[in-house]
Amino acid sequence: MSRIDGRTAEELRPVTIERGWSKHAEGSVLVSFGDTRVLCTASLTEGVPRWRKGSGEGWVTAEYAMLPRATNTRGDRESVRGRIGGRTHEISRLVGRSLRAVVDTKALGENTIVIDCDVLQADGGTRTAAITGAYVALADAVAWAQDRKLVKAKAQPLTGTVSAVSVGIVDGVPLLDLRYEEDVRAETDMNVVCTGDGRFVEVQGTAEGAPFAREELDGLLDLAVAGCAQLDGHQRTALGR
Amino acid sequence: MSRIDGRTAEELRPVTIERGWSKHAEGSVLVSFGDTRVLCTASLTEGVPRWRKGSGEGWVTAEYAMLPRATNTRGDRESVRGRIGGRTHEISRLVGRSLRAVVDTKALGENTIVIDCDVLQADGGTRTAAITGAYVALADAVAWAQDRKLVKAKAQPLTGTVSAVSVGIVDGVPLLDLRYEEDVRAETDMNVVCTGDGRFVEVQGTAEGAPFAREELDGLLDLAVAGCAQLDGHQRTALGR
Amino acid sequence: MSRIDGRTAEELRPVTIERGWSKHAEGSVLVSFGDTRVLCTASLTEGVPRWRKGSGEGWVTAEYAMLPRATNTRGDRESVRGRIGGRTHEISRLVGRSLRAVVDTKALGENTIVIDCDVLQADGGTRTAAITGAYVALADAVAWAQDRKLVKAKAQPLTGTVSAVSVGIVDGVPLLDLRYEEDVRAETDMNVVCTGDGRFVEVQGTAEGAPFAREELDGLLDLAVAGCAQLDGHQRTALGR
Amino acid sequence: MSRIDGRTAEELRPVTIERGWSKHAEGSVLVSFGDTRVLCTASLTEGVPRWRKGSGEGWVTAEYAMLPRATNTRGDRESVRGRIGGRTHEISRLVGRSLRAVVDTKALGENTIVIDCDVLQADGGTRTAAITGAYVALADAVAWAQDRKLVKAKAQPLTGTVSAVSVGIVDGVPLLDLRYEEDVRAETDMNVVCTGDGRFVEVQGTAEGAPFAREELDGLLDLAVAGCAQLDGHQRTALGR
Amino acid sequence: MSRIDGRTAEELRPVTIERGWSKHAEGSVLVSFGDTRVLCTASLTEGVPRWRKGSGEGWVTAEYAMLPRATNTRGDRESVRGRIGGRTHEISRLVGRSLRAVVDTKALGENTIVIDCDVLQADGGTRTAAITGAYVALADAVAWAQDRKLVKAKAQPLTGTVSAVSVGIVDGVPLLDLRYEEDVRAETDMNVVCTGDGRFVEVQGTAEGAPFAREELDGLLDLAVAGCAQLDGHQRTALGR
Amino acid sequence: MSRIDGRTAEELRPVTIERGWSKHAEGSVLVSFGDTRVLCTASLTEGVPRWRKGSGEGWVTAEYAMLPRATNTRGDRESVRGRIGGRTHEISRLVGRSLRAVVDTKALGENTIVIDCDVLQADGGTRTAAITGAYVALADAVAWAQDRKLVKAKAQPLTGTVSAVSVGIVDGVPLLDLRYEEDVRAETDMNVVCTGDGRFVEVQGTAEGAPFAREELDGLLDLAVAGCAQLDGHQRTALGR
Repeated sequence: MSRIDGRTAEELRPVTIERGWSKHAEGSVLVSFGDTRVLCTASLTEGVPRWRKGSGEGWVTAEYAMLPRATNTRGDRESVRGRIGGRTHEISRLVGRSLRAVVDTKALGENTIVIDCDVLQADGGTRTAAITGAYVALADAVAWAQDRKLVKAKAQPLTGTVSAVSVGIVDGVPLLDLRYEEDVRAETDMNVVCTGDGRFVEVQGTAEGAPFAREELDGLLDLAVAGCAQLDGHQRTALGR
Repeated sequence: MSRIDGRTAEELRPVTIERGWSKHAEGSVLVSFGDTRVLCTASLTEGVPRWRKGSGEGWVTAEYAMLPRATNTRGDRESVRGRIGGRTHEISRLVGRSLRAVVDTKALGENTIVIDCDVLQADGGTRTAAITGAYVALADAVAWAQDRKLVKAKAQPLTGTVSAVSVGIVDGVPLLDLRYEEDVRAETDMNVVCTGDGRFVEVQGTAEGAPFAREELDGLLDLAVAGCAQLDGHQRTALGR
Repeated sequence: MSRIDGRTAEELRPVTIERGWSKHAEGSVLVSFGDTRVLCTASLTEGVPRWRKGSGEGWVTAEYAMLPRATNTRGDRESVRGRIGGRTHEISRLVGRSLRAVVDTKALGENTIVIDCDVLQADGGTRTAAITGAYVALADAVAWAQDRKLVKAKAQPLTGTVSAVSVGIVDGVPLLDLRYEEDVRAETDMNVVCTGDGRFVEVQGTAEGAPFAREELDGLLDLAVAGCAQLDGHQRTALGR
Repeated sequence: MSRIDGRTAEELRPVTIERGWSKHAEGSVLVSFGDTRVLCTASLTEGVPRWRKGSGEGWVTAEYAMLPRATNTRGDRESVRGRIGGRTHEISRLVGRSLRAVVDTKALGENTIVIDCDVLQADGGTRTAAITGAYVALADAVAWAQDRKLVKAKAQPLTGTVSAVSVGIVDGVPLLDLRYEEDVRAETDMNVVCTGDGRFVEVQGTAEGAPFAREELDGLLDLAVAGCAQLDGHQRTALGR
Repeated sequence: MSRIDGRTAEELRPVTIERGWSKHAEGSVLVSFGDTRVLCTASLTEGVPRWRKGSGEGWVTAEYAMLPRATNTRGDRESVRGRIGGRTHEISRLVGRSLRAVVDTKALGENTIVIDCDVLQADGGTRTAAITGAYVALADAVAWAQDRKLVKAKAQPLTGTVSAVSVGIVDGVPLLDLRYEEDVRAETDMNVVCTGDGRFVEVQGTAEGAPFAREELDGLLDLAVAGCAQLDGHQRTALGR
Repeated sequence: MSRIDGRTAEELRPVTIERGWSKHAEGSVLVSFGDTRVLCTASLTEGVPRWRKGSGEGWVTAEYAMLPRATNTRGDRESVRGRIGGRTHEISRLVGRSLRAVVDTKALGENTIVIDCDVLQADGGTRTAAITGAYVALADAVAWAQDRKLVKAKAQPLTGTVSAVSVGIVDGVPLLDLRYEEDVRAETDMNVVCTGDGRFVEVQGTAEGAPFAREELDGLLDLAVAGCAQLDGHQRTALGR
């Protein structure tokens, strides 16, 4: 059985990672997973929030948002409604945690990096594209800081790499990297964040329809790990490693 | 190695499920997992939100919150700050999704059930206690509606049971049902929501320290499934099934 | 004429004051006036708000809130609406003022005590139960601070005791400690806060229907003073004085 | 002992009630109690809030606010802070309740009157001046509606008159109609709302310093009743009755 | 063709500028342009916002607002809605910028002046009346500060005078100082802020209907400059210069 | 004297207008004025806001926002702060008014078009680029609606074209289309919105430093009109007219 766009079940959509997209940010990436496009900018400032001062440790956090017409139907702006929605909150926290999993805050020193992930166009997998792009923007911001001696020459603020992919069961078949049309039909939906060496940072699986069995979970995890390994390759290529 | 409170690694804290705690709510439960105490009330009203009207289907949703001094240090009230925090949002959504996984909204008919989970005292595992207690409050509200013919006599709005437990790796050892002191020391933290027949509704695992390997994940899932089976027993006992 | 629950006009509902209800708070009380149940926690922290720093004086404040299903019909959460309602604001201020009336802030030293009064179940008189319970939680927090030498050994931060009761005229008859069903039918509704020696801290009387005459006011005050004297006894018993 | 401004203890400040201050409002009054100046406008619209539709009854409500520099020190605007403060909330509710005490909503028919009381200059007693002026604006709006046949010719939407005054104990002496300098020094502070026939609508007494005794309360009530009787005269004169 | 109120096209409405309207503010003016009445108060405090500290320079800002019933139909309070509307924001910024155009912040020294412009009654031109009155209140506050040596004796914090007027094209005819009825019918609407020596501080022209041609713009500017010159005279008279 | 980027005083930066940038929106444009890049999407939905229903007329509105790191220094997200800032409000209103100036809402019929202008990168002139790009997105959305018969075949919802440009006086020299570095140094700053036939829709001039004279204003207007004529050419080219 082939998918809407002709992919096999274990195939990613075309991935592009365009570095240096913004002239202002210390790191910036326009990442696309098929038609999903996310602008990730990393803003590095010296100093840390008050509760971290004097600790010698840095801080990395993230904010995720969608432009109103990133989606098929226009959504209200959260700034106009005056509140962040639950989904936005949840994804922002996920992106921040995922990045911190590969950051040595001591090595970063008292610097703060904020990663903004703004979805310009959405077609499923916005959070996983955001994490994958954000890592590259983060790497660029760290390199920028090392060039300017804001971070010690021999420090290694990044302890590994991180990427993320969605998997799900659609019509009983486990699929990698769901597009929006697949996502809405999925019985089970899972987002997996892995390090480059294949370990897990986050595993979030949700039964959208019927609860899922252990074998199904196992199959999805296999698919996701393989997908993240490919994304890790895309990141390395983009970073010229 | 024994735990702070003398439990074995695969042992739950003492669980109590007190039904009928509130005289006003259609279903109400004071659930405790050790020192964690959550008041769960189910409010059933006829009718559904506007976007569901005429569908013949009901709606179930949940709101989670903590009293300011449920925790060791007093937290600001979200009502006073004027915003729901990200964690509150995230858990409210999790509780709602978990319950809806065992609800047949067609069988419920055009009725709305709101489950409020208010943490009176917190000692780790507040979201898992909330889900476990909320299911019982939900079951009572459904029974109440059937008594009053708001739901058809032969309808089965509940398609199964649901409970939840936390697991985590502390000092390299996978532990079931973490207390707060264990939770803050956990390298990996996972919340698992299962149906009574042992399938998964939600799996949320997070590396708090180092990323975790597939075998660790597998071990945690085993522990959680066993824990949920025990919680399912507590729920059945409480419901007199 | 006897009342719905068989009480005489000048009789309180059964009062219980359960100390040490929460393991985290410096003082905590679950108070009940009949079916009205309020959890009062006193959180003591060293230091005072910025505007008080260096004054040598402490600060006592209170926050009152209701759980959404404390009442017969579920109310929206104020945290979700994003604003505190007028009634909540008003009662929080009343509780804080009432407690401060018996606090010597100099003797308290630069410590802050926040009293949270969360109504778990409401059946009329929630604010008066809150004040009555809050005093006991406050007394426990002060004792806790004296044990830890945060307050000087010979200091007397509490200059008296305080309790509160509602009174009202229902069908022309002045009644003590109204239940909800009585409260909604009352022509005149009054909340009175007294010290243990029978003086007034707050008197708030409102004509719900027709304006009331001086003799009616006098009768209500008599009833309230007698009620507070009884509550003072309950407080002393609870505190083992 | 004479007061700062030479008044006797039972003397009101000069009272002025200027009707027709605004060209847009159905009723409008600039009321002054000494240097306290409040602009009261009554806005009458046909129809009632949704929850009252079809009841045949009208609705009267009030909003109280202070201009930022009505006071000696500039206060932040509540619109800029994004929230109504507790004091504002409390007084708005008091003004609304006080007016409704003399309104027959059936006779008013399905019309809504909103009374805005904006303090242009504050020198103590802003809420009592607001109530006193608001009544006159309300009377003008009702007359306006009767002229236009929005209210039936023989209907009597106003069942009486209402005014309010503050009293307090300063240096042991009960004083009528406190100025700001007196108010801040008062040991006990009371606001009393009376109908023109001398009955009570609201009695709100607060011990600012030491709790107060029954005789003190009685003395203050006497003073307030006499003050309201004088204010009733001012209202009648202003209305040309 | 004469206007609704009999004015010629280039005639201002009657202007009054009443100084010292408020006893608390360092400068206060009740300004009226016909039936438009704005209370302008200038509040001077020593010190500057944090971002200006140590600069030796002062700060001047403004806030504009309307009372709910300043207009023909009552508007909701922005404090109750919990947000400042776009129009309010825009005008507050305009008033602040206009005043700062004639302030030498170095000469003012580290003092802050906040000008509040509250529209008590609106009949078109509220922002231009606000600017015109605010300048006079500002001048009074500066003089007050010089009297108290808060500003150096020889310093000249005001480098000029500033006033504002609206102009617009109604039925093809350019008119000065529009009333509300004219404003709503205007095809083009322009607000012009000038210094006393006839230069421009702000020019804001908007096509309400058809776009306007250069000659129309030129004609409106001529009219506005002449109007501001007259307002400058009113300001000088009020200030007794 | 040549400018930072070598342009002459009356030269625009390179302008690009990329249509069809988003796959979801009915019209979408990525517009750039030099390094300023704004994504404009036009969302057309059938129906109009409630206050317009049954009028037979459509509605066009706009929302402007900046990504947090569009600028040199990261700004807080307005959604996180919970309020729209004054500048955002002001520009959103300006964009909406500018577009409505060339829309015949009768010809549009009861359809609503919302134009979102999100600044991806800012280097001066974001509001003028937004208006210029928004017009093209609007034209595409209107064409889309005509293709689908949502708008009558012969209707002409667009009565003209509209574009905008900034002008300012820097070091005494009037310059067209200011970059950020020029904008912050400008003594006078003006934004001009013109129709394709050279008439004015909006003129907003502000003295940032000294007030400006009539000749300066005239010079700036000349410059702006010429600039808008060039932008009109870019729009026509982009639209293939």
